[in-house]
Amino acid sequence: MNVVDRLIENTIKTKNPSIIGLDPDIRKIPACYKVNVKGNNPFEAVANVIYEFNRDVINTVADIVPAIKPQMAFYEKYGSYGVAAFEKTVAYAKSKGLVVVEDAKRNDIGNTAQAYADGHLGCVELLDGSQNPSIDSDFLTVTPFLGSESLNPFIDVCKKNDKGIFVLVKTSNISSGEIQDVVTLNGMTISQSIAQYVFEQAETFRGKHGYSSIGAVVGATYPEEAVLLRKIMPKSYFLVPGYGAQGGNAEDILPCFNQDGLGAIVNSSRGILYMHMSDEERAQCSRQEYLSNVRMATLQMQNDIYSVLKKEYLQMVY
Amino acid sequence: MNVVDRLIENTIKTKNPSIIGLDPDIRKIPACYKVNVKGNNPFEAVANVIYEFNRDVINTVADIVPAIKPQMAFYEKYGSYGVAAFEKTVAYAKSKGLVVVEDAKRNDIGNTAQAYADGHLGCVELLDGSQNPSIDSDFLTVTPFLGSESLNPFIDVCKKNDKGIFVLVKTSNISSGEIQDVVTLNGMTISQSIAQYVFEQAETFRGKHGYSSIGAVVGATYPEEAVLLRKIMPKSYFLVPGYGAQGGNAEDILPCFNQDGLGAIVNSSRGILYMHMSDEERAQCSRQEYLSNVRMATLQMQNDIYSVLKKEYLQMVY
Repeated sequence: MNVVDRLIENTIKTKNPSIIGLDPDIRKIPACYKVNVKGNNPFEAVANVIYEFNRDVINTVADIVPAIKPQMAFYEKYGSYGVAAFEKTVAYAKSKGLVVVEDAKRNDIGNTAQAYADGHLGCVELLDGSQNPSIDSDFLTVTPFLGSESLNPFIDVCKKNDKGIFVLVKTSNISSGEIQDVVTLNGMTISQSIAQYVFEQAETFRGKHGYSSIGAVVGATYPEEAVLLRKIMPKSYFLVPGYGAQGGNAEDILPCFNQDGLGAIVNSSRGILYMHMSDEERAQCSRQEYLSNVRMATLQMQNDIYSVLKKEYLQMVY
Repeated sequence: MNVVDRLIENTIKTKNPSIIGLDPDIRKIPACYKVNVKGNNPFEAVANVIYEFNRDVINTVADIVPAIKPQMAFYEKYGSYGVAAFEKTVAYAKSKGLVVVEDAKRNDIGNTAQAYADGHLGCVELLDGSQNPSIDSDFLTVTPFLGSESLNPFIDVCKKNDKGIFVLVKTSNISSGEIQDVVTLNGMTISQSIAQYVFEQAETFRGKHGYSSIGAVVGATYPEEAVLLRKIMPKSYFLVPGYGAQGGNAEDILPCFNQDGLGAIVNSSRGILYMHMSDEERAQCSRQEYLSNVRMATLQMQNDIYSVLKKEYLQMVY
């Protein structure tokens, strides 16, 4: 099945277009995860904590969210051990029926972009010449700074392996406009020009619900821009960061959706994992207490977003 | 010692401002490296081949180049096993006195950018609260698409840990101009605006030779643009891709250098590793034959670039 259809069906089933960012921060993971830790060295020990933490979070939310978004930076910082924890997290989330959006913002020139596309979404060659999946995420975030030549290998791999990408179009951070808001000769901003490229590619690869997994990152913190970007890319799925900790609220993310309540997934990381407890509480709580808070924060976010969508969009399909 | 000074002293010692890109491609690594390979699984086996190949190449060129540039995409495509081979390559190259330029083109929003900076260049927190180096490259390539907020954490880590970055300013590929050549309201291109940011940061962090390790990627394939960028960033080190396989020649890279013959390192990957032998020759050669070709290609590149620099720049310091 086309990966965007799986995402849509998970969204309809859970009545939830919001997803959880798995950004493990060893300083903020509850102390109860950091006792009696195994590992042959201190890096493997951290990686084991991260994986066990992730597995519990996944078990806690697998029935109420459509997808998770692990942020590679927080794994890769621990080198190969961290990446191993990332790979195990991807596999475990998939085994629970979740769609995995890998946030890694990769890209490079042509033949190197191909290596990233193959490794994260496609297949890699082994010594016997066979082609095998490697990291095998469902979606990958991709940066467009090197232009369309650098994006094309990812599009090809998506089509070949039924995967998806979210191209950075308008990011949620304060200084995103320095490059992304610059107006080009044809009167469009850089963001809008990239959106135009995404639109053209998306038209060539759509799922049975009409949407495309050739998608875009559009920050919740710039709702006016989101209105225009939704018009340029009507059938691309949007990955919407910036909700919660970064300041975006449920009204801000409305323009990222279509009238059917589809077309976007909204991410929260710190809001779900850490902000519902103080440092002191996380130092003392049990796993059960912590996970019950994670579930509550997840349901709260679902309710916030779902109720605003339901009120606003009369053609909601869920 | 400031890392840019180590790079300069290696360059002077070897009379060589050119470096080797370690882009392992399992289809092109000579067949003699792929026999009797150990490994608990096929991914570990590939990683072992990659590391052994790299170690031999490093041993072959350590006395004639100042630095190597492993491209992370070609390791990461094999997941945690590939990243482990990357880490071993970094450590081995450093043990041989080489400067390591990690080409990974990372970046993200603030707190995530911090994680990348800590993991690749700085220190990461372990379970006992101690801070330890992780991947620990000397330089890292960084993408500026998210603006200055995303770059600042890398600058801070460079200053704290005596490391360097090369910010993508003008990349060597065909479609680099789609975003990078767009003209902003103040009349500068996006590339030139980023160069201005790099200049300002570089001024705050210089080594004893006057140069800064807050540097820039400037492709050999756009020599006219390089003239302007050198003027905007007179004391930033340039990483210059695009020589050889991508079409840039020794004259093209001249404008990236200053009159002292310093200020830039020129990378070649495929030209040094693969292009001097046909597929058939790589299928049949011995390690010794292959490595002797690698050394010859490296000396050839040194000679091409050095002789053009020596002819043009009368104030050469080496």
